[in-house]
Amino acid sequence: MGRALVRQPAAFLMDEPLSNLDARLRVQIRSELSELLDRLGATTLYVTHDQSEAMTLGDRVAVMDRGRLQQIAPPQELYERPANAFVAGFIGNPPMNLFPVRVVSASAGVQLHLGEQTLPLSAPIANCRQDAPLTAGIRPEHLRLASDGLRATVSITEYLGHETLLYARISRMDAPGSMLVARLPGIQIFHPGDTVRLSLDPMRLHFFGRDGAALDHGSADAPSCR
Amino acid sequence: MGRALVRQPAAFLMDEPLSNLDARLRVQIRSELSELLDRLGATTLYVTHDQSEAMTLGDRVAVMDRGRLQQIAPPQELYERPANAFVAGFIGNPPMNLFPVRVVSASAGVQLHLGEQTLPLSAPIANCRQDAPLTAGIRPEHLRLASDGLRATVSITEYLGHETLLYARISRMDAPGSMLVARLPGIQIFHPGDTVRLSLDPMRLHFFGRDGAALDHGSADAPSCR
Repeated sequence: MGRALVRQPAAFLMDEPLSNLDARLRVQIRSELSELLDRLGATTLYVTHDQSEAMTLGDRVAVMDRGRLQQIAPPQELYERPANAFVAGFIGNPPMNLFPVRVVSASAGVQLHLGEQTLPLSAPIANCRQDAPLTAGIRPEHLRLASDGLRATVSITEYLGHETLLYARISRMDAPGSMLVARLPGIQIFHPGDTVRLSLDPMRLHFFGRDGAALDHGSADAPSCR
Repeated sequence: MGRALVRQPAAFLMDEPLSNLDARLRVQIRSELSELLDRLGATTLYVTHDQSEAMTLGDRVAVMDRGRLQQIAPPQELYERPANAFVAGFIGNPPMNLFPVRVVSASAGVQLHLGEQTLPLSAPIANCRQDAPLTAGIRPEHLRLASDGLRATVSITEYLGHETLLYARISRMDAPGSMLVARLPGIQIFHPGDTVRLSLDPMRLHFFGRDGAALDHGSADAPSCR
């Protein structure tokens, strides 16, 4: 990388330059590289499998899946308004929780079926057929412990010092989307099999149609099936 | 790993088993491995350079530096009560901020010299000679933006979706410890060269002596130089 830098080229092409470094060094070099690229001002095309590198180094990020472009956007838009379920489930560490839901009554809002549980939501989804199958998504930091939340069974906890990741099943079945991960502050002591209650912030829910496209992508209106 | 598992051995020895996986898969396999090892109940000796793997998989973590054992403790103790400056600066992502300070008056507390700035602290440090050089440490999540905080110049910000890492210099000089990193919630927009004010939670400060050992390690009393 040093040899490329001293030649002062008009553009850089980088293909996973940090992948052989250990975790700590990778974070350190990432921030040094970010400062350097800022100062040089040269256009850089940077390929990576590490989402945090893409988020922190990119002005615009292109997310690819099997050779097809899924979304190209600044990091904040990618995180807050993913274009489809693939991007939602790819960006973020851990990524967005995705689970199947059904529209019970489109005018009165949606009812979320999560495993054996039902969660009515007041937020409307426009133009959806009754019983339309959708995918709902919520980021780990928008789940919290609350006595009126969904019942879930603790699978494991991961203590990282400043936060704890809590993995819990909301269904006895091993169905896709039955495991949710919540990002909780500090240390949280739970044991596998413990019952917890997790509440979802309904304003933070994302919805994706049968083809995976986000219902509300590109508009400030309520999510719409059309 | 599968071949080792089916033999049902009494113990596992694992040497960086996840290092060849990409970032997202590593986090996923880490949580599956954690659940599996819990269920098998077999003693596992796991070598890794990835601090988050050590924190999340280990019941007890041994931190080594150049072949010497620095601390052996459960993850929470490692994070909250590091035995020395090496462990403090190694565990955590990003790790603890470490910077040189001087004891101005031992009885009245310490005065922190950070670059050209001085921060008086009410917390006492016992048995320290006046002017004793110490190393102070504070974790990125215990720094916050506050109008009465230390002046710092933004170097870069790293937006990660759920949080933003803010790197800022508290001195014009490029001295060790002049760059602090703060973990701030959500998105925070700053530009290189912006002035910010960062406040340190004095209850969250760690102190290390000239040999690097923590002053308060292993006791509930105030930090002491002896």
